[in-house]
Order: sequence, then C-alpha cells, then structure tokens
Amino acid sequence: MSGIARLRGVIAPNLTPFNDDLTVAEDLYIDHAQRLLADGCVGLAPFGTTGEALSVGMEERMALLEALVNAGIDPARLIPGTGLTNLPDSARLSRHAVDLGCAGVMTLPPFYFKGVAEDGLYDYFARLIDAVDRETLRLYLYHIPQVAGVGLPVAVVRRLRAAFPNQVVGIKDSSGDWENTRALFDIDGLIVYPGAELPLLDALALGGPGCISATANLNAAAIAQTIHRYDASDTAAMTAGFDAVRQFRVIVQGYAPIPAQKRLLALWTGDARWANVRPPLRATDIAEGRALAARLDAELGFRGPAATAPPAPLAAPVG
Amino acid sequence: MSGIARLRGVIAPNLTPFNDDLTVAEDLYIDHAQRLLADGCVGLAPFGTTGEALSVGMEERMALLEALVNAGIDPARLIPGTGLTNLPDSARLSRHAVDLGCAGVMTLPPFYFKGVAEDGLYDYFARLIDAVDRETLRLYLYHIPQVAGVGLPVAVVRRLRAAFPNQVVGIKDSSGDWENTRALFDIDGLIVYPGAELPLLDALALGGPGCISATANLNAAAIAQTIHRYDASDTAAMTAGFDAVRQFRVIVQGYAPIPAQKRLLALWTGDARWANVRPPLRATDIAEGRALAARLDAELGFRGPAATAPPAPLAAPVG
Repeated sequence: MSGIARLRGVIAPNLTPFNDDLTVAEDLYIDHAQRLLADGCVGLAPFGTTGEALSVGMEERMALLEALVNAGIDPARLIPGTGLTNLPDSARLSRHAVDLGCAGVMTLPPFYFKGVAEDGLYDYFARLIDAVDRETLRLYLYHIPQVAGVGLPVAVVRRLRAAFPNQVVGIKDSSGDWENTRALFDIDGLIVYPGAELPLLDALALGGPGCISATANLNAAAIAQTIHRYDASDTAAMTAGFDAVRQFRVIVQGYAPIPAQKRLLALWTGDARWANVRPPLRATDIAEGRALAARLDAELGFRGPAATAPPAPLAAPVG
Repeated sequence: MSGIARLRGVIAPNLTPFNDDLTVAEDLYIDHAQRLLADGCVGLAPFGTTGEALSVGMEERMALLEALVNAGIDPARLIPGTGLTNLPDSARLSRHAVDLGCAGVMTLPPFYFKGVAEDGLYDYFARLIDAVDRETLRLYLYHIPQVAGVGLPVAVVRRLRAAFPNQVVGIKDSSGDWENTRALFDIDGLIVYPGAELPLLDALALGGPGCISATANLNAAAIAQTIHRYDASDTAAMTAGFDAVRQFRVIVQGYAPIPAQKRLLALWTGDARWANVRPPLRATDIAEGRALAARLDAELGFRGPAATAPPAPLAAPVG
C-alpha cells in the first residue's frame, strides 16, 4: 500500500464469541464478521475492548485474524487491536497483522504501570514502530483511559504523528470526552475516529471519516445510513434516523454493554453460545437480556441486525 | 512435591536488566539472582512488578526462567509471576513454571477490565487452575491494586482458598494496607507475604513466613538478618537493625523505585546496563542516582549489597 487509506464509514470492534468451554467459537466469529460487513460496516476492528481482546491469547488472536482473511474478508477492511503491555509481544501481533495486509493496527499504550511520563509513552511507540520494522505499518493509537487505566495525552499523540507521519496515521478516541476528540482533530493529517456514534455528526463536520463503535455490532446499518445521509446532505432524514441511533446506544449502555450485546445476539440468532463471555466478565442473564430486547423493540422497533445493506465501498486513498 | 513447602525468609522480586538495545541482559539477570541468594534471600519471585514483568514478552520470560534453572538455581526457590490479562497465556506461563519444578507461581488477577464482579475474579482463577492442569500447581495470588488497577478482595481470596486448598496456597499483598494484610492472615492455612518489609515484624508475629520486597534487590542481607534475629528472640539487635531496614526502604521509595534501584546497581557494580529500563518507565538519571547513593551512605553507611551471607536454608514442608 502506498499512501494512507482511510476507511470512511462505521467500523465495528467485532465481538468475540466463545463456545461453552470458553474456547473461541471461530464459526460464529466469521459469520458475525461477514454479517457486519453486509450490514454496512466499512471495516472491522477485531480485538478491541468490545472484542474482549485482552481476554484472548496471542495465538488465538493471530489464528482468528487469519481465519477472517481465509474466509474471504479483504484485509484492507481490518484494523485489529495489537496492544499488550510489553513491546516484544505487541510488535509480534502488529507485524503479523501488517504481513496479512491489514489496513492498520489499533494499539493501546502499555497499561500496567500507571501515571507514567509522557516521554515513556512516546518512547514505547517509537520503539514499537522500530520493532515492527515494516514500512507498511499504519498505526491507529487507541485511547480508552477509563478502561486501560492509561491514556494517550494529546501532546504525545501530536509528537508521535510529527515524528512518524507515515506510520502514526490515526487514533480511536474512546474516552467519551469530546473536548479531547476535538483537540485530536487539530493534529495535522491525523485520522480521528470517535469510539462511539454519539458524537458522529460533530466528528463528520470536522472532517472525520466516521466512528468505531461497539454498538455497531448490533446497529451497523442505521449508523452507516447516518453517514450516507450526511454525505448526501439529506439532513432531515439524517437527523430523524440519528435520533434513533443515539437512543439505541444509550439504552444498551445502560447495561453491561459487552455481555448485554452478546446476550441479545444469543436471543436473536438462536445460538446460545453467543451469551458466553470469558472471566472476569460475567454473562448477562437471560431474563435481563429478554427485557432489553423487549425494550429495543418497544421503543425503537428494533428486532435484530438488518444484514441487508450492501457492503460499504472502500474509500479512496487520501494520503 | 507433596504437601506445601513454605519459603521462610525474604524473597526478592528480582529486577530484570536490559542491554542498551533493550533486549534482556541474561548474564546480568543470572548474576543478580545468584547474588541475591548469596545475600540471604530464601527465594526469588521473578517477574513481579519490580521485575518489569509486564514489560517482558512471554517467550523472554520462559527463556529467563529456564536460564535461572540451567545456571544451577534450585527451582524450589522460585515463585515466578505468571499473571497476564488472559487465561490461555497465563495458563501457559504457569504450566511452564510448574513443569520446571518451581515452588509456586505468583499470579495477578486479570487487570484490563476494571470494576469487575467478585464472581468474575473467582471464575478466572478457577478456570486458570483447571487450564494449568497440574496437581503440583502452587498458586500465590498477587494483590497490588494501586498498580494493576484491579485487586483481589479478601472475600475472593477466602473462597478460592476454600475451594482449592491444595492449589491456592498463598498471597503476596503489596497493597501497603495493613488492615487488608491482617485480614488475609485470618484465612485458614493461607501463606501471607506482605509485599514490603515495613510490616515484617507484625507479619512474623501473626505466623507469617517473611516478606517479598522490592528493596531486597539491594538490602536482602539486612532483611534476612531481621528474620534470623526474630527466630532467635534476639530482640534488641533485631529492633535496632530493623530500624535501619525501614529507613533504607523509606529513602528508596522516595524515588521512582524500579529505575532508582537499577541506577544504584549500575553505580555499585560498574555495569552501566543496569540503569536501563523498558518504556513506559524512564531511567533514573545518573546525578539523581549518585545523590541517592550518597544519602544511603551518609545516613545508613550503606555502600552496596553485601553478598556475603550463606544462602538461607529452605524451610521444611508445613502442609
């Protein structure tokens, strides 16, 4: 790849299903990924927080990523998470993804030690880029301080972008802090994805390409439609539709969002394995899941993912 | 091993030295481990927080552990850290340590997701024990919530101890919260090591076997001597000596303790590689290290580790 491709649209941090013995359910994983793309996602971010990435082993991650590509999914639609707490293993996952042809990698800062110096975070990524040792590396920083316990200050992002303009191409900001997201848009050439659809219109207005949102695992079609309507300047329809998109998000976030979304998929697909999570997470019980499903139906007429839209087109390179 | 061996004395969470390219300095690692045992440590806890464990890759950890054993260190003196954020990789490290004959493993709770339910923490360890699949597994829980961001509530420890009495044998409590440590001593048969020497005498008085302390990387002989004097009821000498032990700890903790201890070893051994840390940590600069060394000399007459004491005897099995 020459230049920097930018995926415009909604990207799903796809859920990771487990069998009853908590091994990875590869069949469901691939089915779900294909459905998300059919539902209108422009890409997938496997192994994000929503994908329980840090509960999945290294070998499992690499095998799943290969399984996606072997199943016919274009790696140019994939931005897998590769951030662990240490350089050698994060570099190994990142190199593996680059060599598979992935559009990029999405990488957490090292998150074991807390309160570390900005220089330490900068050095970590500088050394990671060196260790991956691939010109084709496209790195999306992953800022989710409320979960990881360690975030990436805007000043560090700016320094990394300036020092490695061909590698440090973007960021997923899952902080939920719009002031932080807006400050990131001021960094020259940085591709900024909010980690939710709530600030989607504001992000599009600042020139952003879309969002990477957990809720896209269920509601991708409506989020994608919002972006299409934005591009078509169909403001009235966009505003009405986006109101429902926001409501959907707010309702689901009222529950433990990862187990709740899995429980919903178990109910909607009829495959009970979907409800499984790995510890330390706990499955949402079936009664709570049914109540949530009933609420989505009653308030929004939502009865499960659409899976009817054609895949979104890949954006043209912009870099 | 039948029954449960209990290492009585001071255990060092040995530092991990790095070459200038930040690869592991295996030669220094082994030298340091041997010196610590010669200095009076009864055992080592490789890959604790002080050993920058979460900055070291999985393959590197396993290779270093094998290097210690190949260098002639009795694995019955080793309790390596094996806790990552996911079950398969934590199980792999744990099984490797058990199969090498290690006295036990010291395992963090999964620390990516925060604010998780007690049941989720319990399930994680229950499944870990199942996945390791070794009768000879001896598990020491590792409680250090101020760094990991996730701790192990006493209630969870109690449940695990009751459910797996042959596997869940002990805990390292690095919380610095004596009320928590004291509550752990009430759990039947649990081996409790405070993660510092400050509460050592209180822990010994409650029947504890000693401590696992970062500062043992430098000051093992004096900590070991405190325990010997306690056992010999040599109270006056113990009290006087322990006052210096405590002062040493308090002085070193006034700096960033991991980089500061490494800088001191660089100064005292003459091998500059000792000052290296992996990001996100930052090395202590040489002027600050010299000031700290001067202060330890001026206030305590301390000019470097002794390395003169014979190794402490291994305790007899108690379980």
